[in-house]
Amino acid sequence: MAIAFESLYSDIQGRCGKLTVGKKTIKTPALLPVINPHLQLVTPREMQSMGVEALITNAYIFSQSKQYRERAVTEGLHKVLDFDGVIMTDSGSFQLSVYGKVSITNTETLAFQRDIGSDIWVPLDIPTSPASDRETAGRELAITMQRLAEAKEVFGKDAPLAGPVQGGIFTDLREQAAREVTDLGFTFCPVGAVVPLMESYRYRDLVSVVMAAKRTLSPAACVHLFGAGHPSMFALATAMGCDLFDSAAYALSAKEGRYLTTHGSFKIDELSELPCACTVCRSHTQEELRTAPDRERLLALHNLYVTVAEIARIRQAIFDGTLWELVDERCRGHPQLLAGYRAFLKGTVTLEKSDRVSKRRFFYRGDESCSRTEVFRYQQMLSRLILGKNVLIAFDGGIRDEFDTTLFFKPPFGPYPKELKETFPVGQSEIPEWDETMVRQGCNGIRMLKESHPGSRIVVSCNPAWEKIVMQAVGDIEVRNEQV
Amino acid sequence: MAIAFESLYSDIQGRCGKLTVGKKTIKTPALLPVINPHLQLVTPREMQSMGVEALITNAYIFSQSKQYRERAVTEGLHKVLDFDGVIMTDSGSFQLSVYGKVSITNTETLAFQRDIGSDIWVPLDIPTSPASDRETAGRELAITMQRLAEAKEVFGKDAPLAGPVQGGIFTDLREQAAREVTDLGFTFCPVGAVVPLMESYRYRDLVSVVMAAKRTLSPAACVHLFGAGHPSMFALATAMGCDLFDSAAYALSAKEGRYLTTHGSFKIDELSELPCACTVCRSHTQEELRTAPDRERLLALHNLYVTVAEIARIRQAIFDGTLWELVDERCRGHPQLLAGYRAFLKGTVTLEKSDRVSKRRFFYRGDESCSRTEVFRYQQMLSRLILGKNVLIAFDGGIRDEFDTTLFFKPPFGPYPKELKETFPVGQSEIPEWDETMVRQGCNGIRMLKESHPGSRIVVSCNPAWEKIVMQAVGDIEVRNEQV
Repeated sequence: MAIAFESLYSDIQGRCGKLTVGKKTIKTPALLPVINPHLQLVTPREMQSMGVEALITNAYIFSQSKQYRERAVTEGLHKVLDFDGVIMTDSGSFQLSVYGKVSITNTETLAFQRDIGSDIWVPLDIPTSPASDRETAGRELAITMQRLAEAKEVFGKDAPLAGPVQGGIFTDLREQAAREVTDLGFTFCPVGAVVPLMESYRYRDLVSVVMAAKRTLSPAACVHLFGAGHPSMFALATAMGCDLFDSAAYALSAKEGRYLTTHGSFKIDELSELPCACTVCRSHTQEELRTAPDRERLLALHNLYVTVAEIARIRQAIFDGTLWELVDERCRGHPQLLAGYRAFLKGTVTLEKSDRVSKRRFFYRGDESCSRTEVFRYQQMLSRLILGKNVLIAFDGGIRDEFDTTLFFKPPFGPYPKELKETFPVGQSEIPEWDETMVRQGCNGIRMLKESHPGSRIVVSCNPAWEKIVMQAVGDIEVRNEQV
Repeated sequence: MAIAFESLYSDIQGRCGKLTVGKKTIKTPALLPVINPHLQLVTPREMQSMGVEALITNAYIFSQSKQYRERAVTEGLHKVLDFDGVIMTDSGSFQLSVYGKVSITNTETLAFQRDIGSDIWVPLDIPTSPASDRETAGRELAITMQRLAEAKEVFGKDAPLAGPVQGGIFTDLREQAAREVTDLGFTFCPVGAVVPLMESYRYRDLVSVVMAAKRTLSPAACVHLFGAGHPSMFALATAMGCDLFDSAAYALSAKEGRYLTTHGSFKIDELSELPCACTVCRSHTQEELRTAPDRERLLALHNLYVTVAEIARIRQAIFDGTLWELVDERCRGHPQLLAGYRAFLKGTVTLEKSDRVSKRRFFYRGDESCSRTEVFRYQQMLSRLILGKNVLIAFDGGIRDEFDTTLFFKPPFGPYPKELKETFPVGQSEIPEWDETMVRQGCNGIRMLKESHPGSRIVVSCNPAWEKIVMQAVGDIEVRNEQV
């Protein structure tokens, strides 16, 4: 197999992995900066020194370029771009989505990508606009699938081919596309045509189409979120199971005088400070950067530093098992990202199945933390506790002799026996002062315990402040307002 | 006046200002890195090139140093440290708090600070431990106040003297101290002895003592949060009205192999990646940094870059009027910071009075956003709306002819007339899908409108999903489940 992906460790659906393309291996999650051969603000070699292992360029631009076509064919892409890492090429589909047509066929672009020595080739898929109706999306998907089949047929099953997943905003079509792409044997699967969703802040729709694709893609497939280049959304996309991103944003933004941050973009003219630790920002004032003769390059460098650093932060979060916390941090940066995050949290039941067992910690970051996979999993486990006939759940941690079993209580998880006090998540979770939402979530655990242990009489002992919530959440239960 | 402070623009209680000390002026908020003359991991000159305008060193160390004492007296501190910005000196109070005694008196240390050419002198105040009881705190405060009075008397009212605010964890003592410091004419006021609170994550107590001091300090005083050096809490401290921080954390952490970030500290050995945009992190792998011969210096540099960048981010947030959003982002980084943030939000009624009128935007970041000053202020304003006899609050935005006045509804603010649709905060606020908490907060506005307009009959028209919340929040009100 020409393209192979291995997940080394994971958190939620995010993976730190190894993508092997021929003889080259890169770490994922990874960002592939987009290189336009005609306009290299930052050279591939400079990018490599920042930690970039792979990049993407446009085969269609090379194929149409008087300056570069011949050189690329004779010298090869890696020599022309002076980069010995992984180079992926796009086919011209982007131009197709912008201009409506391209003067190249599917097999022509793939042969050209092969001839210039690209490491990952993309067929001429049809990026279906989110505005397209179902009939159009379905028709375009059929063409895409035909071309993917043709690609495999013509270039062989071991060719380093990407199999894009299309289907517009229709989740059933995305599921179908992902299933068919998997059946055709693709192990490198871009989720395509999502840029318009991101440009218009439609993060709920983004979550819906990516999660649909992930449902039917093989877990062994490396997933590339095509055109995703803003660092504010990498964490959420990674948590959904995307492994690769590609960014023209660093350069396009620089051209327009925009300054990327993990919490949004700013026009350089609007800034009064340079709120970043990178070498550009710590060696220039805002005024110096704004008026610098090489401002576009400096901005592109800053944008890349921030973007590459975010990838490192995400890898670290997966390693630690703190990806939920990073997703929470990033997604509160824009209300529509928060909407996407809340939509993502609604899938906890599914996400829990593949989430890892133990993590560095659980930090409570607000109400949304109550919906995390760890809470759901913990409460599912409660049915397996062995209880006596008379059970006390003591919010204050005090033991009363009249009960056969005493459990303690830690929101948002719920009741726990002392044996679980030092285990994850009860032991490694840190919460602020108890609040209503987390106590209510914990009481959900009491309800589940009660339902799964009909032979036990369960009594809750708590501070009067929580009595009402206990009653509301659990229903028919004996509550004592006593403290020992 | 030797020390003067001017606030140029503000957000919540945070200020971007100008601190003038003699002929030197620095921008605030500012970070003063702590310089130990015996151990300069990063030189003052290097710090200056990162944007550092002021630093702090310890006069007591100089006074006890065979190597530096004479040089400091003859050549002056600025020459010895090779730094022409503002240099503040600590008196030995820190040593007092650690070792219990120092071999110098109040007037001796101040005369020494004067003689070595320090720009800001700190009297020998007594840093009261948070563990001290009220009687001890009061007794120590009395000594501190005596010494501050002595300082003013001996060195004159125009001497560049800092007036530390002590009082332990007792808010009445902090209020008293701040009042007396103000009465003595101090315009530069460190809030002292808070390091143990920060070290033990007691952010609720930190909020309580800083807010107490701020209540009675002059708004014209420049407030220094003594010993605050971790970038994760600068935003919260700034929002409370602190203008200066000083950091030994960059160096102490580096010594211990710790890597600072705005979301917490990591041991370098535990990291698998370097999740930062700074030049150290983007030119080394974790392995290279961990094993570098100059690792301590590299870590100190990284720590400083991150810290200085956070100050820039805070200034930008104040400029934009988005400080609440930054505080929210940072404080969710640790559950105890979240506890401090929630405690701070409880002071909204007070904070609103001094908050600015218009801001760049209002981004909803979760339930905590419902308690922001802008929401409180908007709802206060509702009593001034002029209403007809029959008033409709149309959640769906539809107008019905049978009503004299139609208002629309935007959570978490509440009802608004169409004239306010484009004004702050209704017009410049962005929210995700409506949720219960924000709708309930908006209904609080309906309740206030109803109470302040007893002559009007108010009817709410809303989707059935919200009816229960409207009834709960407003009480006796007519609700129609109709849509136009």
